[in-house]
Amino acid sequence: MVPIKYELIKTDKQTGARLGKVTTPHGSFETPTFMPVGTLATVKTMSPEDLKSMHANIILSNTYHLWLRPGENIIKKAGGLHSFMNWDGSILTDSGGFQVFSLSDMRDITEEGVHFRNHLNGEKLFLSPEKSMEVQNALGSDIMMAFDECPPYPATHAYMKQSVERTSRWAERCLQAHSRKDEQGLFGIVQGGEFEDLRRQSASDLVSLDFPGYAIGGLSVGEPKPIMNRMLEFTTPLLPADKPRYLMGVGSPDSLIDGSIRGVDMFDCVLPTRIARNGTCMTSHGRLVVRNAKYAEDFGPIDDQCDCYTCRNYSRAYIRHLIKCNETFGFRLTTYHNLYFLLNLMEQVRNAIREDRLGDFREAFFEQYGLNKPNAKNF
Amino acid sequence: MVPIKYELIKTDKQTGARLGKVTTPHGSFETPTFMPVGTLATVKTMSPEDLKSMHANIILSNTYHLWLRPGENIIKKAGGLHSFMNWDGSILTDSGGFQVFSLSDMRDITEEGVHFRNHLNGEKLFLSPEKSMEVQNALGSDIMMAFDECPPYPATHAYMKQSVERTSRWAERCLQAHSRKDEQGLFGIVQGGEFEDLRRQSASDLVSLDFPGYAIGGLSVGEPKPIMNRMLEFTTPLLPADKPRYLMGVGSPDSLIDGSIRGVDMFDCVLPTRIARNGTCMTSHGRLVVRNAKYAEDFGPIDDQCDCYTCRNYSRAYIRHLIKCNETFGFRLTTYHNLYFLLNLMEQVRNAIREDRLGDFREAFFEQYGLNKPNAKNF
Repeated sequence: MVPIKYELIKTDKQTGARLGKVTTPHGSFETPTFMPVGTLATVKTMSPEDLKSMHANIILSNTYHLWLRPGENIIKKAGGLHSFMNWDGSILTDSGGFQVFSLSDMRDITEEGVHFRNHLNGEKLFLSPEKSMEVQNALGSDIMMAFDECPPYPATHAYMKQSVERTSRWAERCLQAHSRKDEQGLFGIVQGGEFEDLRRQSASDLVSLDFPGYAIGGLSVGEPKPIMNRMLEFTTPLLPADKPRYLMGVGSPDSLIDGSIRGVDMFDCVLPTRIARNGTCMTSHGRLVVRNAKYAEDFGPIDDQCDCYTCRNYSRAYIRHLIKCNETFGFRLTTYHNLYFLLNLMEQVRNAIREDRLGDFREAFFEQYGLNKPNAKNF
Repeated sequence: MVPIKYELIKTDKQTGARLGKVTTPHGSFETPTFMPVGTLATVKTMSPEDLKSMHANIILSNTYHLWLRPGENIIKKAGGLHSFMNWDGSILTDSGGFQVFSLSDMRDITEEGVHFRNHLNGEKLFLSPEKSMEVQNALGSDIMMAFDECPPYPATHAYMKQSVERTSRWAERCLQAHSRKDEQGLFGIVQGGEFEDLRRQSASDLVSLDFPGYAIGGLSVGEPKPIMNRMLEFTTPLLPADKPRYLMGVGSPDSLIDGSIRGVDMFDCVLPTRIARNGTCMTSHGRLVVRNAKYAEDFGPIDDQCDCYTCRNYSRAYIRHLIKCNETFGFRLTTYHNLYFLLNLMEQVRNAIREDRLGDFREAFFEQYGLNKPNAKNF
């Protein structure tokens, strides 16, 4: 029995965006949704209760990092990742591939897998489709990701074609190696960079393997946003309508809206939590760097349109003070706010789909942030 | 009108310890009690809600640190420290003296005050009784401390006598400079080191000034515990029975019990929060260094006798993993546990006084921890 279900509730008449519901062994959540990233079995500075209070239903954790620390066997002995970290909502784990390609040194990619040195102590390691499945099966996440190659952007068509074909072969090996098919759902990852023919080939290969969900990888890796949008427009129609679609590593507010419009259901990104720890907040007036001196005596909230815990109780002046003093409670407050901002944005997106007005919502949002201007900065 | 009231509820028939109730402009709390330390307007890693959930009623904040960062005027403009940090319970601020003597360089003590260089950037600063009152009045704490000299241990009788006399003159100047007597209560600080005649002289001087409460300073600065206990036995009877007594900087479990037995009502210390951030926990089986390798696969709680949030929900293995990875949620969990442990201990002490069995409680506690043995380590 496949443990992941997708129910299409309706499509937005203005844009075609999908309002849906994903069910995993740890509950259901409406889509489109954003997944906070908890790399090392914790969303940095947050408690599980913090995440629940902002209505996060699914979080992402990183297989590569947990494989290295504390090791998947400790988590397995703890009863799995949910039990280990006291999170009874849904968990998605990535394959480890992205980190191997982005964090490690001296990687050597073969048909069998990837040899590399880990980023902590230089130890020689080997990650393969089978190993990734073994680790993710030990972690016990609700949604696992197939082990894929993530070529850097830009890549040549020739290289990308080889890579896509290998990723398809690896996806088959992942399916074979996956040992808990009744308890964990495995998603395939469509690659192909900016090449439409390769995206088509990759999607076709993976759909034929009948995964319970599909991710779109290799976007938001440096390419201009119009290219990302064009690729999405081209790719999502290649995927089955009755399965969830996950756009990996995308978390800027404008891209969440534009991805939803192109039929994406799930997103994740370290952006909101990472910039929070640098004192940068997402607000309804654009980005706000609360550590700036001009907020030293500003006793208003981070965002006067926001009703989150941080904005209801704390001033810019206080949060600036905490961050300047490196007090972790400051990072906790900005992290809470940024995650709430994105989760709340996705709720607004879902409500707009429900009411067939996501196109209007996008227009108003882009107008408010000046994102329609030719030289608009990233949000 | 004096804004601090002390009500003696009863004394323990076995030991003479006092069960009391202190009322400040921000509420009441039973004593003996322990005050978590929130140096920079935050108890490191904790939210105000975390503190309330463990029944903390009063916290301490450090005048010296807040004077330097963010500066008392910002906090005054925010409406005072309670408003700035979103804490509606009671707050006690120290005078800044202890930090000037312990943290700063090149201090020069004169009758007027202390010239020193601050520990952050070496800037020349001057702290005096009048300046300390000005800063604490701006902070708006419920309980302020008089500016005193804290000589290092050991000091000669001659030096300590000079110092005690200056501290008494400074106390008078503090009383005169204190500009919000209806809103903030100012405590005098009895000094005198290990010299009984000087403790007597200091107490006599300060009691004649009729403060609404008294602190006992200059203990727990390196002297053996029997000397601290002897000094307390000698000093607390010199203080009025209808005022609260605060033993500064003491927070080890055994000393909290022994201080309570000698008539102390309030305690504070960075110990529980500081050791928590090093991965060390106070437990009903003694100290536990949760970052040790032997806990890597230990899925039991920090303390099997504890019902705090941390112990109900997280394992030693998980907390060790977080701390090894420098994840702040780990420090939050150990900090929560340690503060809960001490606040819960003080509740047990109060219940023992209520039932006239604090002597028995102490015996059982010291037996459990092996604290009666000749070579007992510090808790």
